[in-house]
Amino acid sequence: MERTPKLTPAETTKTDVVIIGAGPVGLFAVFQCGMAGLRCHVIDTLAQIGGQCTALYPEKPIYDIPGFPQISAADLITNLTAQARPFDPIYHLSQSVCALRKGRRSRWSLLTSAGQQFDAGAVIIAAGVGAFAPRRPPLDGIETYESLGPGRGVNYWVREREPYRGKRVVIAGGGDSAVDWALNLADLAKSVTLVHRRARFRAHEASLDQLRRAVDGAHIDLVVPYQLAGLIGGPDDLTAVIVEDLDGDSRHLPADVLLSFFGLSQKLGPINDWGLEIDKKRIGIDPTTAQTNLPGIYAIGDIAGYPHKQKLILTGFSEAAFAAEAAHGHIHPDRPLRFQHSTSKGVPVPTLVGRS
Amino acid sequence: MERTPKLTPAETTKTDVVIIGAGPVGLFAVFQCGMAGLRCHVIDTLAQIGGQCTALYPEKPIYDIPGFPQISAADLITNLTAQARPFDPIYHLSQSVCALRKGRRSRWSLLTSAGQQFDAGAVIIAAGVGAFAPRRPPLDGIETYESLGPGRGVNYWVREREPYRGKRVVIAGGGDSAVDWALNLADLAKSVTLVHRRARFRAHEASLDQLRRAVDGAHIDLVVPYQLAGLIGGPDDLTAVIVEDLDGDSRHLPADVLLSFFGLSQKLGPINDWGLEIDKKRIGIDPTTAQTNLPGIYAIGDIAGYPHKQKLILTGFSEAAFAAEAAHGHIHPDRPLRFQHSTSKGVPVPTLVGRS
Repeated sequence: MERTPKLTPAETTKTDVVIIGAGPVGLFAVFQCGMAGLRCHVIDTLAQIGGQCTALYPEKPIYDIPGFPQISAADLITNLTAQARPFDPIYHLSQSVCALRKGRRSRWSLLTSAGQQFDAGAVIIAAGVGAFAPRRPPLDGIETYESLGPGRGVNYWVREREPYRGKRVVIAGGGDSAVDWALNLADLAKSVTLVHRRARFRAHEASLDQLRRAVDGAHIDLVVPYQLAGLIGGPDDLTAVIVEDLDGDSRHLPADVLLSFFGLSQKLGPINDWGLEIDKKRIGIDPTTAQTNLPGIYAIGDIAGYPHKQKLILTGFSEAAFAAEAAHGHIHPDRPLRFQHSTSKGVPVPTLVGRS
Repeated sequence: MERTPKLTPAETTKTDVVIIGAGPVGLFAVFQCGMAGLRCHVIDTLAQIGGQCTALYPEKPIYDIPGFPQISAADLITNLTAQARPFDPIYHLSQSVCALRKGRRSRWSLLTSAGQQFDAGAVIIAAGVGAFAPRRPPLDGIETYESLGPGRGVNYWVREREPYRGKRVVIAGGGDSAVDWALNLADLAKSVTLVHRRARFRAHEASLDQLRRAVDGAHIDLVVPYQLAGLIGGPDDLTAVIVEDLDGDSRHLPADVLLSFFGLSQKLGPINDWGLEIDKKRIGIDPTTAQTNLPGIYAIGDIAGYPHKQKLILTGFSEAAFAAEAAHGHIHPDRPLRFQHSTSKGVPVPTLVGRS
């Protein structure tokens, strides 16, 4: 998906802010920057807006966004995109930032893998966990089964439920994704078998209660403590998953699809090389300005770290507000940002007159 | 509305957390505490939930809540109340906290003006600007006109637009409220006259553009620089507002209603007496734990202060998440709160199985 950077970029785009990452927090940063009068370009490695929300779990309900007792990840992204739209952000997708260098004065110069060059007053890094890939279980020939598509072979995430209808689904993993999807597909699939190498699951208490009821009601088969040992099938389909207990005794679980939930391996990639202070894959920031150790570079959302940091989308939103104000101060040190009460702000479209 | 505290309170209610203030931020604190397994009682001086959102501007659109390109203050409160509901908060309205004292061990003891007593593991102060009242312009006999109801006499806020239909409306003030309501009522009222003692308004740039267009289009009469000098009318109605320029020359503006927007006078009241560090009517907190100088007492939202604080509902929401985690640590120092990714949290209602 990524192209090699051109040696001689055609043109440099000058802008107030470049936002790295078009996930929910990056999108809300567009809105907050817009409210501060700053124009934004947004760069993302994925081919579409929304980060993990769109790529990994669009149908998953989210419960902890203030004001939404429940919202799907996809709907949240739709709303945030609409909220950012009045500020005319320009999205540059399917490319990553491969170089970030100090520019003239206190500006920054960026080069993307698609050969685009930017001259930015400030940079807001909202890159989540960085480029992410599912952790692949070490099974012989697993590659063969990875390309069969949703509901067939080996899948690492569920984008929609329908492809799993009537299928024999084996789910491997012990965390929230494994438990939630086992519950979620139980009424749709022909069978759901949940495999974990321990008897205990690391999932939310309410989900575990539901899991117990589903197992008691024979809606879900629990195969614990077992781990994945092999895959059986032809070139075009999976037929069974082999699992082994701790003594090496094995079982064959008939299966059309293995859903493997062993988390994501995270790669910060080039972000490591920009001179930012990084600890445990998090960029250190001042929590009330989102300022990194480099002036004019801000980090927000899951990629940002500070004491007591909570990895919630909500805290990322709040960090976006801090970053926008700080970026405004960096770009216009002589022009104070008038303090605005949240309820008295307007957006730059005529919505006040004549509304009912 | 407030009753004198009884000398011998009947019974003490024991709870994990008492939240002072049932505005948007206090409501979201119920949700965040609930997610951390903490039960909450919520106390508010107003007779209904929602704080200023409900009492002062229920119909006002808010633009900067993440995920809502636009939402009315009333709808936001409805949603937040629904989001808090699964955690069974108990609301104690029409009463204020008149005493807060150290209890046994590291707990806190509270007494309300209705004579209720609480024994709480932690206290979260989400009291906004404290008890609030509109600033009253110094006009002879103004009290007479204050009780005539919406759209008549002197009003300090607009709860709904309808009572202003066909009325001669004089609006006084130079901030967002004055400008926004002038624009908002222009198509509904018989006439809208905007009075300000300066020629310049302290309102959002986009609103000012609209104001200029509305004045040019003769939808709004601008009377500047003038200030309020008197009211003319009978016992049951206002007929005119007298204004004066800087030279003392006066004009009579025919009016059915004067909308007076000179801000709110804020009273922290008893909160001043609890030993909290307060600077400029804000309680000082650690921005990533919401911890005040008193262990087990947290402050969030507009009443909380720290360097670079932004007075947004959003930042209050984020502070609620910090406070809930810190309160959990204070109440259960031996029981770590399992880190939960925002999208894998569930609420304690069976919503996962069988959803479509």
